Amino acid sequence: MRIDGALLERRLDELYAIGDRGLYDSAWSAALDRVERWMEDVGLKTRRDAVGNLWGRAEGADSGKSIITGSHIDTVRNGGRLDGALGIVAGLTAVEALLKDKGKPRRPLEVVAICEEEGSRFSTNFWGSRAIIGAIDKPDAEIAAAMRERGLDPTKIASAARDDIDTFVELHIEQGRVLESARSPLAVVSAIVGTAHLEVTVTGQPDHAGTTPMDLRRDALAGVAAMVQAIESIAKSLGKPAVATVGKLNVEPAQINVVPGTVVFTVDLRHADLGGRRALEERIRSLCRTISEERRLGLMIRTLQEKAPVAMHSEVRALLARAAKECGVQATEMVSGAGHDAQILAARCKVGMFFVPSIGGRSHCPEEATRPEDLELGTKVLAKALALLAY
Amino acid sequence: MRIDGALLERRLDELYAIGDRGLYDSAWSAALDRVERWMEDVGLKTRRDAVGNLWGRAEGADSGKSIITGSHIDTVRNGGRLDGALGIVAGLTAVEALLKDKGKPRRPLEVVAICEEEGSRFSTNFWGSRAIIGAIDKPDAEIAAAMRERGLDPTKIASAARDDIDTFVELHIEQGRVLESARSPLAVVSAIVGTAHLEVTVTGQPDHAGTTPMDLRRDALAGVAAMVQAIESIAKSLGKPAVATVGKLNVEPAQINVVPGTVVFTVDLRHADLGGRRALEERIRSLCRTISEERRLGLMIRTLQEKAPVAMHSEVRALLARAAKECGVQATEMVSGAGHDAQILAARCKVGMFFVPSIGGRSHCPEEATRPEDLELGTKVLAKALALLAY
Repeated sequence: MRIDGALLERRLDELYAIGDRGLYDSAWSAALDRVERWMEDVGLKTRRDAVGNLWGRAEGADSGKSIITGSHIDTVRNGGRLDGALGIVAGLTAVEALLKDKGKPRRPLEVVAICEEEGSRFSTNFWGSRAIIGAIDKPDAEIAAAMRERGLDPTKIASAARDDIDTFVELHIEQGRVLESARSPLAVVSAIVGTAHLEVTVTGQPDHAGTTPMDLRRDALAGVAAMVQAIESIAKSLGKPAVATVGKLNVEPAQINVVPGTVVFTVDLRHADLGGRRALEERIRSLCRTISEERRLGLMIRTLQEKAPVAMHSEVRALLARAAKECGVQATEMVSGAGHDAQILAARCKVGMFFVPSIGGRSHCPEEATRPEDLELGTKVLAKALALLAY
Repeated sequence: MRIDGALLERRLDELYAIGDRGLYDSAWSAALDRVERWMEDVGLKTRRDAVGNLWGRAEGADSGKSIITGSHIDTVRNGGRLDGALGIVAGLTAVEALLKDKGKPRRPLEVVAICEEEGSRFSTNFWGSRAIIGAIDKPDAEIAAAMRERGLDPTKIASAARDDIDTFVELHIEQGRVLESARSPLAVVSAIVGTAHLEVTVTGQPDHAGTTPMDLRRDALAGVAAMVQAIESIAKSLGKPAVATVGKLNVEPAQINVVPGTVVFTVDLRHADLGGRRALEERIRSLCRTISEERRLGLMIRTLQEKAPVAMHSEVRALLARAAKECGVQATEMVSGAGHDAQILAARCKVGMFFVPSIGGRSHCPEEATRPEDLELGTKVLAKALALLAY
């Protein structure tokens, strides 16, 4: 079975040329039309569900639950060529090769372009996959209006739910530098991390930078510096895949000659299992408390968001490793630090994901790229996995 | 010799009621008129120089150089009741008591309301005292226009320079918590600190907070946290009067799920002698370099401002200590962490300053306050010092 690498690149180019795609906007619509035409050209029967997820289906010799591959069609603003697009194009290209090579599958085999995952336009994300598992009650007014503009009926969202999916497999770019650093072309994802977002407010006393000796200060920023250091140390000492990031930090009153009175900062913390994530969070909270007490600073910690980690299905992990091996590659295993639709779909079916390397780890930007041979290899492994699952 | 504490408070109230005073604005003008009337009532001969410094003079039995006391009439925005105002009102009240009690002085004795010290309206400071030492070449267009509005001729600024001042003595509030913490009612200032302002830019790499393991990061903020900690430690380890403050800090791209790529922060560092200030700066620069190298971060340090420390004149220090003792108080000695006109006037005459406590160290805000008995004691010590100098 041969994967047409040039075709793969051409399809990725075509989607990228359409530009950034926000949910239900005109570029999003144009991209969906393009993918639908490709699906039809390949011989798949297409349909769009109530939220605009696009499905292309090859019936199986047996009836029963479907084997599905694909990814999301939307993009972040000023995004790149591969995030989401790769999973759709590789899925389509792999299924095309399978149909050509092996004919009708045993089980129903589908490619899906999921309408939204990124929070690309509205303050929502995993919109498409949440509809598939029946987890959307009703859309807010803004999204409902945008749906109607695209001819979608917001009162019908429940009809998008499916209970006939056996397995969902997705190829994605890594969006980090782990594979590149390890000189590995492919990784099977073991789990998608759970994330907590905290907002920490530290209050000291704003004082004159000249007239207040060091020992009479309650400097909010000096305390926060100790906390930022501690947060980094805790994540490092817990070991992979724990990560913790202080991404935003605001100082008040932010004057060159005034000791900072208040600092507000955020912590993004992630781990592949809930126990690990909770341990990470508890140690961070405890150290922040100790530092604030030692320095007589006020401390308030607020949870902004919390998402549980999701393990990929063990059967699908093993199958993906086997598919890689049969393509001559020893896949590594890794945890996904970013969120993906698979973590939502896991509530209703077996899920598995695998990654190809991102050059320099760049993603969500125009520099997002993967070597052509890695893209082709990824698509080949995907075809092999789908063959094992559906034939 | 009796100081009328109630009169002192009343005059401070009257000036405070006029409101914030920016150089050459209408409140500034009203305050200067009020002080001029008080000077005339006390029997001083008044004049305004080319920049609007207001002088009230009692001729001495001998001619020769003058003994001068006073402070600045301008205020910061949303300022307090005592900063600057105290030095003028206490000077006037002390001279009034001396003239009443002892009659004509031996040497010329003057009270001055210096037109500007705070940078209260234009991007300048020490405007009045710099005119007195002849250090202003010519004003920028904005200040020149404001001068003309007040009937002052900007081409005459050089005429404000004086070379007939023997000694300048100023009473000021501490603007910090050192005296309060030491439970001391009075401090003779030994020196005014030298200040350097640095701007430090640290560049790492902005990365996805989920997909970038801790060991592959070049986190600008984590590096800066280590620097902020080091800056605090260095200032503490050098001991008083060294202080170092990180007052402003900006993170880019400032997103909750992105590792910070760039951080820019400021350092305000002060010491009473130039060697100390330079040692402080050199150690801070060196540690920032070490941290940035260890963490593979870019580092750029820019000097925004540099002011040398100024020692108060030893004779005036001794005289102020003696005056305090004769008023029954053991004065402490301290370094002024804030800038004052005395540091400018030191270029042309003997200078000395002393402080009374600030409640809670508050200053440059409406809560700025000093206990009435401390204000009265300060004024009494000032009168005693002027008696020793001028009679």
